[in-house]
Amino acid sequence: MSNQDLILTSPTAQRLYSAYAQTAPIYDYHCHLSAKEILEDKVFTDIADMWLGHDHYKWRAMRQAGVAEALITGSAAPADKFRAFARTVARLVGCPLYDWVHLELDTYFGIAEPLDEKSADRIYRACNKSLRERSLRPSDLIRQSNVQLIGTTDDPTDDLAAHFELARCKPADCRVIPTFRPDRALNIQKAEFADYLASLADCAGYGAIRDFAGLVAALRQRVSFFGQAGCLMSDHSLEALDFVDSSREQADAVLKARLSGKTVSADEARVFSSQLLVELAGLYTEFQWVMQLHVGALRNVSSRMFARLGADKGFDVMNDFQVAVPLAALLNRLESKGTLPATILYTLNSKDNLVLSTLPQCFADSAMPGKIQFGAAWWFNDTQGGIESHIKSLAEQGILPTFIGMLTDSRSFLSYTRHDYFRRILCQFIGERFDRGEYRASEEILKELVEGICYKNIVRYLHL
Amino acid sequence: MSNQDLILTSPTAQRLYSAYAQTAPIYDYHCHLSAKEILEDKVFTDIADMWLGHDHYKWRAMRQAGVAEALITGSAAPADKFRAFARTVARLVGCPLYDWVHLELDTYFGIAEPLDEKSADRIYRACNKSLRERSLRPSDLIRQSNVQLIGTTDDPTDDLAAHFELARCKPADCRVIPTFRPDRALNIQKAEFADYLASLADCAGYGAIRDFAGLVAALRQRVSFFGQAGCLMSDHSLEALDFVDSSREQADAVLKARLSGKTVSADEARVFSSQLLVELAGLYTEFQWVMQLHVGALRNVSSRMFARLGADKGFDVMNDFQVAVPLAALLNRLESKGTLPATILYTLNSKDNLVLSTLPQCFADSAMPGKIQFGAAWWFNDTQGGIESHIKSLAEQGILPTFIGMLTDSRSFLSYTRHDYFRRILCQFIGERFDRGEYRASEEILKELVEGICYKNIVRYLHL
Amino acid sequence: MSNQDLILTSPTAQRLYSAYAQTAPIYDYHCHLSAKEILEDKVFTDIADMWLGHDHYKWRAMRQAGVAEALITGSAAPADKFRAFARTVARLVGCPLYDWVHLELDTYFGIAEPLDEKSADRIYRACNKSLRERSLRPSDLIRQSNVQLIGTTDDPTDDLAAHFELARCKPADCRVIPTFRPDRALNIQKAEFADYLASLADCAGYGAIRDFAGLVAALRQRVSFFGQAGCLMSDHSLEALDFVDSSREQADAVLKARLSGKTVSADEARVFSSQLLVELAGLYTEFQWVMQLHVGALRNVSSRMFARLGADKGFDVMNDFQVAVPLAALLNRLESKGTLPATILYTLNSKDNLVLSTLPQCFADSAMPGKIQFGAAWWFNDTQGGIESHIKSLAEQGILPTFIGMLTDSRSFLSYTRHDYFRRILCQFIGERFDRGEYRASEEILKELVEGICYKNIVRYLHL
Repeated sequence: MSNQDLILTSPTAQRLYSAYAQTAPIYDYHCHLSAKEILEDKVFTDIADMWLGHDHYKWRAMRQAGVAEALITGSAAPADKFRAFARTVARLVGCPLYDWVHLELDTYFGIAEPLDEKSADRIYRACNKSLRERSLRPSDLIRQSNVQLIGTTDDPTDDLAAHFELARCKPADCRVIPTFRPDRALNIQKAEFADYLASLADCAGYGAIRDFAGLVAALRQRVSFFGQAGCLMSDHSLEALDFVDSSREQADAVLKARLSGKTVSADEARVFSSQLLVELAGLYTEFQWVMQLHVGALRNVSSRMFARLGADKGFDVMNDFQVAVPLAALLNRLESKGTLPATILYTLNSKDNLVLSTLPQCFADSAMPGKIQFGAAWWFNDTQGGIESHIKSLAEQGILPTFIGMLTDSRSFLSYTRHDYFRRILCQFIGERFDRGEYRASEEILKELVEGICYKNIVRYLHL
Repeated sequence: MSNQDLILTSPTAQRLYSAYAQTAPIYDYHCHLSAKEILEDKVFTDIADMWLGHDHYKWRAMRQAGVAEALITGSAAPADKFRAFARTVARLVGCPLYDWVHLELDTYFGIAEPLDEKSADRIYRACNKSLRERSLRPSDLIRQSNVQLIGTTDDPTDDLAAHFELARCKPADCRVIPTFRPDRALNIQKAEFADYLASLADCAGYGAIRDFAGLVAALRQRVSFFGQAGCLMSDHSLEALDFVDSSREQADAVLKARLSGKTVSADEARVFSSQLLVELAGLYTEFQWVMQLHVGALRNVSSRMFARLGADKGFDVMNDFQVAVPLAALLNRLESKGTLPATILYTLNSKDNLVLSTLPQCFADSAMPGKIQFGAAWWFNDTQGGIESHIKSLAEQGILPTFIGMLTDSRSFLSYTRHDYFRRILCQFIGERFDRGEYRASEEILKELVEGICYKNIVRYLHL
Repeated sequence: MSNQDLILTSPTAQRLYSAYAQTAPIYDYHCHLSAKEILEDKVFTDIADMWLGHDHYKWRAMRQAGVAEALITGSAAPADKFRAFARTVARLVGCPLYDWVHLELDTYFGIAEPLDEKSADRIYRACNKSLRERSLRPSDLIRQSNVQLIGTTDDPTDDLAAHFELARCKPADCRVIPTFRPDRALNIQKAEFADYLASLADCAGYGAIRDFAGLVAALRQRVSFFGQAGCLMSDHSLEALDFVDSSREQADAVLKARLSGKTVSADEARVFSSQLLVELAGLYTEFQWVMQLHVGALRNVSSRMFARLGADKGFDVMNDFQVAVPLAALLNRLESKGTLPATILYTLNSKDNLVLSTLPQCFADSAMPGKIQFGAAWWFNDTQGGIESHIKSLAEQGILPTFIGMLTDSRSFLSYTRHDYFRRILCQFIGERFDRGEYRASEEILKELVEGICYKNIVRYLHL
């Protein structure tokens, strides 16, 4: 079987994939690419850097295989790192890394040969030769993958200089928009909080933030500023769902205590962050933004490796707390106030799939089909099994047709093959049921479903 | 593939289904049909009313698709509602609604054509023409589906007039029995509680309920009265599993405080409801009733829509709390007192499947095979995947052979096709393993398994 | 289909199984066999005793089927018990008991006929005739199954006499090593605790244990002693994950209070057991042992049956508490102190599969590939679906290649077929992906994967 049919064992799935999915445009509305790197558009020179420079998925697999850290995040030669990775990935049967790597080799380098310790050096040289000969740049990959939108992830204090410049010059014929991620403004117990508020005040053009109203005003200024740069979405990482009833007065008291140097208790912190999230949701509603909530990461679990390498180096896991009551209460609180924005709920743990597939219909709005979304399987869950189980859960609860589909959440320009991977699984899901006679739809409806989930639903959802 | 083979890809499954399942009698021991409507047996006139009048499954899917509420629960014309639903359901690949709708069209109207926006008007007219020409009534559907038993769901204060009349005249050759659902007697914190106790006292023939003993006596009178109407089961919706140790004295103190107008704390409410559940289980044991516990609904999560439409309109979700310790403790407490009735545990969240498949064997009783049941996949879980995963979990833990099988839990007379749906999945489960040589049983045992789970186990379980 | 192809529908799976798995040696590193029985090596005389003497899996299934306790753990004649079991198992479609029983009949008795009430007496006689004629002993079964290592489960106070004798005489050409299971030393709230410490002091050669240092010293003596008997692993049953911050001083105060006859609160007990687990992990690290943590049993849930039959009689279930935060914190605490041994995490509830598949990479160590293991699906989870879902979870998170594979956890000498069962599922997992073109590996790598997981990884992991 060639890669053309990867995952696609159903004849209808093969047809749907090639007719409506394979070359459909990509709207990668949530990722961790650097706008600056897109703007600079530097020629790539080394596949080892491209693959192993930022990818904690690969690092984790190599660590578990017993590869020394020097060959992972350390100072070993790129060729040696590549070889160590090749040896690791060749044994990863059933792991998305295996699939992604081979899809990337095939799509961007025309290499169909499996990667292992024997082919490693040959493939390494071939990739680098190809990079050199084609002067391959980010803009080439973006154009080749037919990417129409890239949503980066940005701190409210960012000046978005690269985004403004990209909007002006559009090197890759692709819209690159920032996403507003204000996590640091909510983490009132962190040591850096006061300094962060100072820089927030600074970039918002305020003397200082002295109270809760001032903080909200500064954030409003940043929301407005992000809006000028094309921002359409916010993003929150929720590592707990400990919302409490709160008021502006209470949040104000907590913030003032914090700014006066007092220690904030866990209970006080919850009052503050709950109220600030409500205020932000109000802003998102006002600006017609989408609110993304990423639920369930448990970060930096190894103190030893955090001290050595810092955050986002592959030492996070998924948490397993309960989500139904707090998420339902949050959405209800916002809806009751008339400030529930279009919202995407992502979970890291597939145990939440059923809960998150039943919540959206309770807060539906005929003005915006699929207003509340259960977002694509994410991070550790972004596996073939994870995607299948997510799609099945959406389908069984009747919310698949308005699903806004895939995003890469990636730090790499090669990751657009993850959209391809997702689209294969989606077409296989529909095609299998069609072939078995369980689903009998017209070609028009099949096309609408596949194209909708691939890109048309997100275009509509973001009012593009 | 015709609908005849829906789900049945295994040759053995096809054989088992047509030989032992397809036309086997239905004992629909738990549903939400109205005994009064069965008694009145009014001619149906409009498929839109039949389908969209009470069905929150359909309403939820339509809402998520962006249909306006006027076309869902509002005052739009039936034909318009039908068209909006047709458009929605045509896109619901993998959703049980899609399967149910087409099974109902096929079974009750002889219509094999898929429903979508193009066929909607034609199918609407054909269904209504058929209704008119056949003067179709509830009793016809009950008879056509070979339904032998209908278990409705009733409040202890109900006079069961329709049930007594149905027992006398039997319009559909089907036993219609009430189920005792005393949730309102346990919810001591609700505002309506005192009024409810007054009406309970009234119908039980008491002046007033003044203490816990009086409440239990009134409930005993109602249990006895329900028994005269043929009742064989009770039903409880457990939206939390917060049982605590309790005594009659404690429950009495809480009840007296409540009746004297005092506010009852959450802790006191738990003492009261825990003790009352224990007392009720004692009554159920005495009357040889089955106790049904429906665990895990989280209801009315949208305050906005609850204020607008009220309860049971499609604004509920599944909860995700822990169940193992509290359910094990409850069953143990009852068993230790010698008052553990035959019990069916239902969960709304399939994350509990393994726990609920291992509990029953710990409280087994040779006098009643399968005494503790893990009840059929329910509500949001009553999907193809949900039923498969439930059956697989029962099978893997060795408790499938005594399983009492399917129920509709429905408000519609057309829902008997859900038994058909379940039976196909059951036959497919057994047939696949037989075809692969993993399960090698005699025809006699295959027949016993399929017929047992389709209807013979429930007949034995209810001592019919 | 013959049993030869059981589960193996993929051609590549069939090839991998027969080439690399079927006859590969077995290292059964965790079981509940009695070293004394291995040493005595008594001739078996009755298949009913072999099957029904100690097997709570079979007892549970029989109870749920309505078999009387006399025919299960009672005094009924073996032939009657066998017949009752045959009747039960014949209906267990999809249950591992069905598969195990038929694999055992085929492997050890050459009987391919399905067991049911009709074949029961014939098969019973044939098995017993075969036992008599072959004078079948434990050593024969161990040799026939190519078992190279047996890890029993032993209390620290055990004198290990049988283990020392087995090391000397090796009747079955198989290494039989003890496993150190100090649960009773951690359960400070149990009534037996003081007596247990007395016997621990006694066998460690101490006058008495008077403080925490004394307890740790006594345990260190027993660890050393177990080491002399070949021990390479410890084992803990964690029925809660309620670790707290603790110090030696705090644990010492709690222990002294307990030994002086005071009641220990739940909080104090947690301080004591948390600190003792940390101390033990230090010992395991020092002795280069593996630490096994079995998480999530909820034991003896029926007080009635516990009073009648005692522990381990089939009245346990799986619990469903949260595991991510406490397990991550425990591993981090140990790693931060430099005393994290190689650790195997087992869960009874497959809801934890994703969490336990993402934790290991966070505490990886290039000196020991796969240092932290997510152990094989266990007990209630040790089903075809449970094993598949465990393997899939390991694979998707990239930790399958270093997996140390299967163990029986059994009390029966016939259970080595569970390794066969596991190996079939493993080969099917790999083979299916190979056949579909999703996984394209050289024969060398396929061989390495299969042999590694079957036995080479555990050989390396235990430094054998």
